[in-house]
Parts: sequence; structure tokens; C-alpha cells
Amino acid sequence: MQLQRLVVKAEQLQNEHVRLEPSQLHYLQRVLRLGVGDRFIAMDGEGHAWLATLKPLTDSLAQATSMQATILEPITAPTELAVRVTLVAALPKGNGFDEVVRQSTELGVDQLLPVISDRTLLNPSPQKLDRWQRIANEAAEQSERLCVPHITAPISFTAHLQQTCSQTDSRLQKYLCVARGSTPHLLNCLQASMSDASLPQVMIAIGPEGGWTDAEVAAAIDAGYQPVSLGSRILRAVTAPLVALSLIAAVWESER
Amino acid sequence: MQLQRLVVKAEQLQNEHVRLEPSQLHYLQRVLRLGVGDRFIAMDGEGHAWLATLKPLTDSLAQATSMQATILEPITAPTELAVRVTLVAALPKGNGFDEVVRQSTELGVDQLLPVISDRTLLNPSPQKLDRWQRIANEAAEQSERLCVPHITAPISFTAHLQQTCSQTDSRLQKYLCVARGSTPHLLNCLQASMSDASLPQVMIAIGPEGGWTDAEVAAAIDAGYQPVSLGSRILRAVTAPLVALSLIAAVWESER
Repeated sequence: MQLQRLVVKAEQLQNEHVRLEPSQLHYLQRVLRLGVGDRFIAMDGEGHAWLATLKPLTDSLAQATSMQATILEPITAPTELAVRVTLVAALPKGNGFDEVVRQSTELGVDQLLPVISDRTLLNPSPQKLDRWQRIANEAAEQSERLCVPHITAPISFTAHLQQTCSQTDSRLQKYLCVARGSTPHLLNCLQASMSDASLPQVMIAIGPEGGWTDAEVAAAIDAGYQPVSLGSRILRAVTAPLVALSLIAAVWESER
Repeated sequence: MQLQRLVVKAEQLQNEHVRLEPSQLHYLQRVLRLGVGDRFIAMDGEGHAWLATLKPLTDSLAQATSMQATILEPITAPTELAVRVTLVAALPKGNGFDEVVRQSTELGVDQLLPVISDRTLLNPSPQKLDRWQRIANEAAEQSERLCVPHITAPISFTAHLQQTCSQTDSRLQKYLCVARGSTPHLLNCLQASMSDASLPQVMIAIGPEGGWTDAEVAAAIDAGYQPVSLGSRILRAVTAPLVALSLIAAVWESER
């Protein structure tokens, strides 16, 4: 049986103890019916996790029925990718980005950067960001990740290019996925860049329905993006990110 | 601008003509507002497609406003994979399989074989098959494929294993995706099998929520399946097929 995972804040961790909030204690005791000695996994969403166990609270002020948690050992499950992946995704129409957030979290993404491109139809409401972050939290717990991806507020693709233009770190590789071109396949590019085995960060940009405009492709290349192909078929805006992230994760997780 | 694609039946193709059905004619003329001389792509879903153009119907019985289509030339867009991929997928709960059909069609799958496994929660109604096939048709048109994947009626995983057991073709490679094992990564297995460059057919099996049972894994291995990993994170039953198909398509479409 898999142990329950619980995201906790850094300040809840003190010495060997997890200072559980009343709602968390309620969840563990009343909903999951865990008792003294039962174990669960506490994770801080930043890549750290601990095996913890419930014990009676010995504090003199506590009620007899209360419990707290003690850390047994740190967990180093290798569920995080050895490369930090930022997905730059033009917002698809409707609620399409919900599924992109969920699935890209499952696939190990580190950061999601929704952008508004020339052909983007959607102008998201500010509440969307909260919703997306909630979906990312859930998906990180379910897929047994130690990190929760960070989602930034949507900005224009042009503004993103201006920001990333100044990132001249040679150890950041930027790929722009384009359809209908004769660009090299992403898998080839990834495997070629792996010869430099220390590549720590990849940024991958996916266009909206209808693709990037020619002007956007040109501007992205100027900003250091390399155009790549995801294959011969036309993928929907919600499918393309998963294909790209599947390839990145597989190249890093398979044996070389 | 991309031309509209239309799936037609083999019997609609006669000499240089496409005998359009009234509903198709309505769609081209009234919905898309195509007129005499406008072009579209007729595809038979079996890998053939033709550039066609609308012309006035000269048949004496026809009304003056009616039109038919003439074939201009065959199309050989390389949107089909050089390998035939069969996806054997334990049915996910709810309507999850709808999205698996849509996305796996985009990714080039040749055949979908939904199965009922020990942990499958869903027992689909017979109408589901029609619905899935309709989704596959739409997705094939949208992703500019020439073939429409064939979807078989759901059977038990045990029955599938009995059927495939007798398929002793050494040029059919069968992979069973398992979570939480120490099995080799699918990408490694695919690239190793590509050294035999003529591999014409791959079968890939994906489990339900909660995974395959130990007994199912053992039975699959007996039937010639090789267990493989899709990476360190736990994927949902609707995400795992896309990861597997992304890798298969990329290995065949990238340069070796």
C-alpha cells in the first residue's frame, strides 16, 4: 500500500518534528483514520520529503487525544528529473490548459509559463492562476513527485522573449516546437545536447491552435530559441506539450 | 491555408470522381462555403488520399445547383508512421478513453484494443465503440493523417493474451508498461530494437488506475510481452498511453 502524501510548509518542520496544522491532523486522524505509529510522507513541494509517524503529543498543554508527527528519515525517491524543465505554452482555448498543467506535472515539469501569442484566443481571468496551481499540487501528490511545479501569471510571448533574451546562460537550452517545417526532430536535438551531460535546464515553447506566426518564430530564434519538430502529424495545442515533455523526461531517465 | 479533409468510403470513389453523399455535399457547400473549382482532400482512412475539386454535376437528373467532385491527383504526405502500432489499453474510468482515442490518433496509432483488466472499473456500453470510432475519424482528419485507427470491441485482458500468444511473429515486438519496477526504460528498448531496422509492428499495453495485478504481469510475460518503464513518476491511465506513443513515434521519425 502506498503511504499518504501531505504537502507541508517549511515553517512546520522543526528539528525532528512536523508541527501539523489542525486541518491536517483532522485529515490524517479522522479522514484517513491513522493512529499512533502509523506512517505518512511529509513533503515541502521544493524537492524534500520525509517519512513521518504519528505519536501522542507530550506537551503539557495538550489534550490527551492530540497527536503530532515525528520525522523518521528523509526520503530520496528519484521521482524528480535531473534537468529543470520550463514549459512555455501559448494558452489553448477553453479549459485546455487545466489538462496541460495536470499532465505536464505528471511528466516532471519544473515551471509552467503560460503566454499569450498572436493567435491565442483566450484571455484568462486572474482566478485561473489559483486554479492551475491547485491542479499542479494535486497532480504532484498523485504522481509521487517531491516538487510542485510553479506556474507564473500569463504574459505576452513578446514579453517572454524580451525576458529570456537576457538569459545568456549557455547551460540553458531553448527549443521552439513548430509544425510543418523541415526542422530537426526534438529527440535528435535532445540526444545531441546530452553529449554535454551537465545540461541543467531546458525551456520548451509550444504554440497555440494554428501555430506560431512567422514573425513569432523569427523573434524566438533571435531570442535564442532553436526550432524543432515533434513529428509529421499536426498535434493539438493540448497534446504537443505532452509529447515534448515525454521526450525530455525519457532522454534524461533512460540509460545513455 | 490548409485544405479541408473529408473521409470517404471506398465505394464513393469511381474512376476520377468522388460520389459525395448529400450530407458531405451540404457540409462542403453550406458549412465551409466551397464553390466550383474549390479544392479539398478526400481520404479513404486506409492510407490513401486525393486532392479533389468541386465541379457542377452534369448528370441530366441533377438539379442545377448540385455539384460533384473530381480527383486531381493522389497525395502522398508522409504523415503515417513506418511502424504499425497497436495500443492495448485497460479502459480508464469515466470518459477517460475518449481522450486516449483522440490523442493516440494524433500520435499515429494504427489500432486501439481496449481491454478489461482485473482492476478495470468500467464496463462500457456497446454505443461507446461507435463514439470512439467517430472521435478517431475526427482526430485523423485534424491531425492530417491518411489512416484512421481501427478500434476493436473491448475484451478481457486474459482473452487478449490468449489471442496474442499465438502470434509468434518475431517481427512483432510487445511491450507491457509497468510502474514502480526496475524494468528497462521503453526508450532504451525501442532504440535497441531499432538496430533491427525492419521491425514492422509494435504492440504496447497500458494498465488501468492502480496498475496491472502481479498475475496479469506474469501472464503477459508468458504471452511474449516485455515489461518496460515509462519513467520514475506515477502516470495516470490517460497519460501513460501518450507517453508511450510519443516515444514510439519519435524513435521512428527522428534520424538514427
